[in-house]
Amino acid sequence: MIAEIVCVGTELLMGQILNTNAQFMAEKLAPLGVDLYRQQVVGDNPRRLTEAVLTALERSDVVLFSGGLGPTEDDLTKETVAAAMGLELVFHPAEWERIEERFRGFGRKPAPNNKKQAMFPAAHCTILPNPRGTAPGCLLEKDGKAAVLMPGPPRELRPMFTDYVMPYLEKRSGHRLYTHMLRIFGKGESDVEFELKDLFDSQSNPTLATYCETGEVKLRITAQAGTDAEGEALLSPVIREVERRFGDVVYSENDEELAAVCHRLLLEKGATLSCAESCTGGLLSSAFVDMGGSSAYFVEGDVTYANEAKMASLGVKAETLDAFTAVSRECAEEMAAGMRRKAGTDYALATTGYAGPDGDEVGLVFVALASAEGVAVKELHLTGDRNRIRRLAVLHALDLLRRKLCTSR
Amino acid sequence: MIAEIVCVGTELLMGQILNTNAQFMAEKLAPLGVDLYRQQVVGDNPRRLTEAVLTALERSDVVLFSGGLGPTEDDLTKETVAAAMGLELVFHPAEWERIEERFRGFGRKPAPNNKKQAMFPAAHCTILPNPRGTAPGCLLEKDGKAAVLMPGPPRELRPMFTDYVMPYLEKRSGHRLYTHMLRIFGKGESDVEFELKDLFDSQSNPTLATYCETGEVKLRITAQAGTDAEGEALLSPVIREVERRFGDVVYSENDEELAAVCHRLLLEKGATLSCAESCTGGLLSSAFVDMGGSSAYFVEGDVTYANEAKMASLGVKAETLDAFTAVSRECAEEMAAGMRRKAGTDYALATTGYAGPDGDEVGLVFVALASAEGVAVKELHLTGDRNRIRRLAVLHALDLLRRKLCTSR
Repeated sequence: MIAEIVCVGTELLMGQILNTNAQFMAEKLAPLGVDLYRQQVVGDNPRRLTEAVLTALERSDVVLFSGGLGPTEDDLTKETVAAAMGLELVFHPAEWERIEERFRGFGRKPAPNNKKQAMFPAAHCTILPNPRGTAPGCLLEKDGKAAVLMPGPPRELRPMFTDYVMPYLEKRSGHRLYTHMLRIFGKGESDVEFELKDLFDSQSNPTLATYCETGEVKLRITAQAGTDAEGEALLSPVIREVERRFGDVVYSENDEELAAVCHRLLLEKGATLSCAESCTGGLLSSAFVDMGGSSAYFVEGDVTYANEAKMASLGVKAETLDAFTAVSRECAEEMAAGMRRKAGTDYALATTGYAGPDGDEVGLVFVALASAEGVAVKELHLTGDRNRIRRLAVLHALDLLRRKLCTSR
Repeated sequence: MIAEIVCVGTELLMGQILNTNAQFMAEKLAPLGVDLYRQQVVGDNPRRLTEAVLTALERSDVVLFSGGLGPTEDDLTKETVAAAMGLELVFHPAEWERIEERFRGFGRKPAPNNKKQAMFPAAHCTILPNPRGTAPGCLLEKDGKAAVLMPGPPRELRPMFTDYVMPYLEKRSGHRLYTHMLRIFGKGESDVEFELKDLFDSQSNPTLATYCETGEVKLRITAQAGTDAEGEALLSPVIREVERRFGDVVYSENDEELAAVCHRLLLEKGATLSCAESCTGGLLSSAFVDMGGSSAYFVEGDVTYANEAKMASLGVKAETLDAFTAVSRECAEEMAAGMRRKAGTDYALATTGYAGPDGDEVGLVFVALASAEGVAVKELHLTGDRNRIRRLAVLHALDLLRRKLCTSR
């Protein structure tokens, strides 16, 4: 089954918006047994949109559209695709009621031009609900071709794609693919590939593929199988073998982020946390506060950027700063211990380092973890620009905590 | 002049890499007077790549390619485009010497297959240097059509595009465009368009266009002119008129972000800052620490997520929390005042609110600014998910500071 992605919108075409929808959908297609051969971006121009729709429907079995479902005159995707497939749009009163209800939920009233959003073909059409916005999506099927129309805003497209489109594609492709995404922190992509070369080369079911993220490697293991149990039976020995070779640098089997793993472990253990940050400047605390429910364990974070703040808030000693500077093992240790004491938490993380852009020692960072057993400090030599160094420092601090939580009772 | 962007690479097509090159190039074309009608992404497949190249060269004057210039068999862009234009590739010894030299600079030796990267047409070809990588780009011109071939890695493509391709496009289009990007906080996109309707409708040079970002509106004003002075003379009266109507909700004429404006004003005034955060959880501090040089004014940030931390670190009174809860005007006021006192800074910002996902009052947020003149508090009713509420709260806090810094001596 051949698929094509067509993203519609002048703002996207002109680069005012980054096209994250195409990537979001594209990376989910291969595991569904769908071949993606092309992506297109076109603006809200009727002639060129029509041309793109006709070309895509001609050469692909399924065309995934994003954007152009809004109420304005510029929003043309549904009208254009329906016309290209020879389908007429008619007003759906039940859908209109749903739209009115959604507007009430937002404390607003629909305008007359919103009626356009309740227009769909009378047949060959499945309406796809959009709980996050006012524009429903739809799936049009005719003569063996399918067009899936989804709204442009990623927060509306993503759940619609995951909840409705992926199950449809899986069913239609006849493939059943089972996948685990292992996440690895502390080993580079080339090392991962080198140390698993025999598995990469010999395996046809399951298959392995690596992906890079800032400071991390993701390893996707995908099996084709008839049932869930068969899929797991194929995946499980490979996952076990990777974990046997790599040990605890594998921190998730299910694509869970490092911060989410820490979040889950802290909640499970009923432990509390505080953070003292210098170079990461709030990013570390924010990684926890990002997640709903973090108030159960996250007590306090201190961004002690100036030396005075390190002394006054965390009790870092003036002699320590004089003798070793603020970017030192000793300072990181006192920051973590001081934070833990002050906030009265089970664990306290600390970061201090040179994030640049200027200075001789850019990339030198210390991360520390204080617990009832004392303080552990890790010295890092990171590379990249200011924000990459800060992000990597956050990951290393999270990893320190993750390892501690995994081994403590 | 009509342009098209063709990004080549299976990793890009399959969503293993986010396509930032297309956006980077696309947003620079309109101000150069170049019309961009289409973007395509294709994999490293010879047949489909050939088809994409032929289609693009047929319908567009300039085709901008990224990717596929590497040394491996998968890298086919140059071979395919040259063949489509009827150009034969020949070995360029001078270019090969340059590649060997570049490898020496990286402390490596080129492999035999790198010779492919020194193959270019003998005529109709301008080689574009790539100081950041081993694959030179090239510009092929024949029969009124141009193909620009650039490497895929963004850090190699970006300088090549800016240094060589943009001057070429500007010269070829014969347009000179001048642009100002105004940034607006505190007015929605539809209000901006409504209140400037006469300007939008009547202007052909300069033209106006709005763009949305989280919580903000950007207004681009673009003039076509022969010289810098002429361009400014056309832009200036329109900018003045927008500012006259909108007053201080316009916070930048040059696409400067809110945090960057605060950063600049704090440095100019030699003033110091601290932040006390609850719901924003480190994002506000991080907005400052993000910027190199912030250590000159940013003293300390406290993420006082728990009530105990608000009391112990900031001196928020237990009675205040009992009587008004942590999400209240009173608590925000005490947080800001307590932070300023503790850190000894000229200004202190505070945030407290319900970011969700659960609860009856999700979106209720207070931001406060303490200064020598006392504490100002603003009550906000924000909508969206947890992270949108937190981001909007940060913007409101920044705006409170920006307004204060603009009016203080």
